[in-house]
Amino acid sequence: MGAKRIGKQTWKPEHPPVIISAAAVVGPFEGQGPFKDYFDHIYTDIMAGERSFEAAEKEMLLNACFTCLNKANRTPQDMDFFLAGDILNQTISSSFSALELRIPFFGIYGACSTSAEGLALAAMLVDGGFASFVLAGTSSHNASAERQYRYPTEYGFSRKPHVQWTVTGAGAALVARDGEGPRITFLTVGKVQDFGIKDPLNLGAAMAPAAVDTMVRHFADTGNGPEYYDLIVTGDLGKFGHSLAVKMAVSNGGFDLSKNYQDCGLMLYDTRKQDVHAGGSGCAASATVTYGYLYRKLMDGELKRVLLVATGALHSPVTCFQGNNIPGIAHAVSLEMI
Amino acid sequence: MGAKRIGKQTWKPEHPPVIISAAAVVGPFEGQGPFKDYFDHIYTDIMAGERSFEAAEKEMLLNACFTCLNKANRTPQDMDFFLAGDILNQTISSSFSALELRIPFFGIYGACSTSAEGLALAAMLVDGGFASFVLAGTSSHNASAERQYRYPTEYGFSRKPHVQWTVTGAGAALVARDGEGPRITFLTVGKVQDFGIKDPLNLGAAMAPAAVDTMVRHFADTGNGPEYYDLIVTGDLGKFGHSLAVKMAVSNGGFDLSKNYQDCGLMLYDTRKQDVHAGGSGCAASATVTYGYLYRKLMDGELKRVLLVATGALHSPVTCFQGNNIPGIAHAVSLEMI
Repeated sequence: MGAKRIGKQTWKPEHPPVIISAAAVVGPFEGQGPFKDYFDHIYTDIMAGERSFEAAEKEMLLNACFTCLNKANRTPQDMDFFLAGDILNQTISSSFSALELRIPFFGIYGACSTSAEGLALAAMLVDGGFASFVLAGTSSHNASAERQYRYPTEYGFSRKPHVQWTVTGAGAALVARDGEGPRITFLTVGKVQDFGIKDPLNLGAAMAPAAVDTMVRHFADTGNGPEYYDLIVTGDLGKFGHSLAVKMAVSNGGFDLSKNYQDCGLMLYDTRKQDVHAGGSGCAASATVTYGYLYRKLMDGELKRVLLVATGALHSPVTCFQGNNIPGIAHAVSLEMI
Repeated sequence: MGAKRIGKQTWKPEHPPVIISAAAVVGPFEGQGPFKDYFDHIYTDIMAGERSFEAAEKEMLLNACFTCLNKANRTPQDMDFFLAGDILNQTISSSFSALELRIPFFGIYGACSTSAEGLALAAMLVDGGFASFVLAGTSSHNASAERQYRYPTEYGFSRKPHVQWTVTGAGAALVARDGEGPRITFLTVGKVQDFGIKDPLNLGAAMAPAAVDTMVRHFADTGNGPEYYDLIVTGDLGKFGHSLAVKMAVSNGGFDLSKNYQDCGLMLYDTRKQDVHAGGSGCAASATVTYGYLYRKLMDGELKRVLLVATGALHSPVTCFQGNNIPGIAHAVSLEMI
């Protein structure tokens, strides 16, 4: 067992790494939501000046990465590693961004949990003495995801109430050994969970058990209950997944999440006016909320301790067609101003 | 810059982690090749007793993982992390294996460079004090890959001479802080490269420049030239990629690879008798050769120093249809009996 491991699934860096800068860019629809003043760029067109949805997503990820570097007055050459992943097949937004950034690159895949996976690995590479600077990024795009996972948006198919809305946007964070910013004080790495959900249009329910499993494990391993945090956010459970998580946290460990727990996929939109059905989803849900809104609130001192629990559904259309359940995973990262 | 970084892209663990066990399983066709006595299991049927090609691939990866654990007399509960990735969409072989292993899981994606990406990250997690034991695995399957990337095998389409043959199999390695076995003494993390190749049926040419870039960087960073190693292997460049790499190593740095450099995709088959066109490819190419054949040769003392340079093509069918070039990446890991 590593010296830095505490409890069963949680690690505590010796010298907690710092997120010295963060950036978030979003599409036009996300730019109409409550966090519009917290984003670094709001695209006026989902094509982002490119010729395909996929190229637009890559442009957004690259923009987030360069904005993040610029804010810290750093260049790609200063970076030891670039960690990125996304939900497009063969994680092309990340690979093609890595091509332009020219930083030693590790592709990662955690579906919509990728933001926290990137932060967790970045923190370990920095704390382990392998890096001074790690850039971690992720992205999603409504139209590229819809046509890959569901139907081309042009079909205009009717959406069920529990369907979620893939967020268009990207986020990046620069994790460093020293500097000003929230520190990564704990990380809890998830195990894959399967609670028997088979409907790929109900991913919130598939991921909620994984989120709760990781949170309960985090609380037990660290000895810090939910009340330790000013805010706990999951990635993209949406309305139904969020309420399921609140209930499961009570039944699985007696934890009360009712006071300070929200979901990035719900926070990102004004759900009274914006029709996103059950809420936002996609890698960009947790990334844009965390690297846009939450990062600023932490820097401004309005929040001191945030627990990010990014959630991912690890299915593919093929596994669903073949009758498999949809497994979920969640990774938790504590962000603290200390 | 991390204390353990030497040169521009190479890291040297302080206390080089050990691969205390390794396992490789292959399909029936691979079991007819020259390394048949080095594999832990040869399936008699590519379905591996399952109902789909995808389920068969997962069965192979799980088998490799459990065999690897058993050889070290370890259980999944002893593992700190499971690192795995594969080339199926949404890396389902890895995620569904992680579900059964129940080890804290980081999904990774480096296409066919995943074996070395897993070893490199495992080595850093162990050397950084975050893990005592990390299980790293990867897989590919001819039929699941063909139908996802090219054509369903049932079409029986004519294959061009430079087309490669996706290897059916899986490999796993157990990286530990201490023990008997080859140690990971250096790791060189690749940058994504683009040399203008657009043909997804000619991946060897797309990946060769990345392999050479990483090798040349490794030689420069460590001060150890090709002659330092008993054997240098790339993952799956095949016949054309291999000869291209030999030429490029001369022109890009004056390095002579003609004496001790081979390609796993070529080594795995008896290319005089087995028709694999330009050679084997897929994540399992480097994984089965390294964790089957090379691991045994290192343990037996016939090889003392091996440089694994696993290579990946980071395209997707969508990026190719949209006219993009095929970017490549390669990661190098030094395996030494010291």
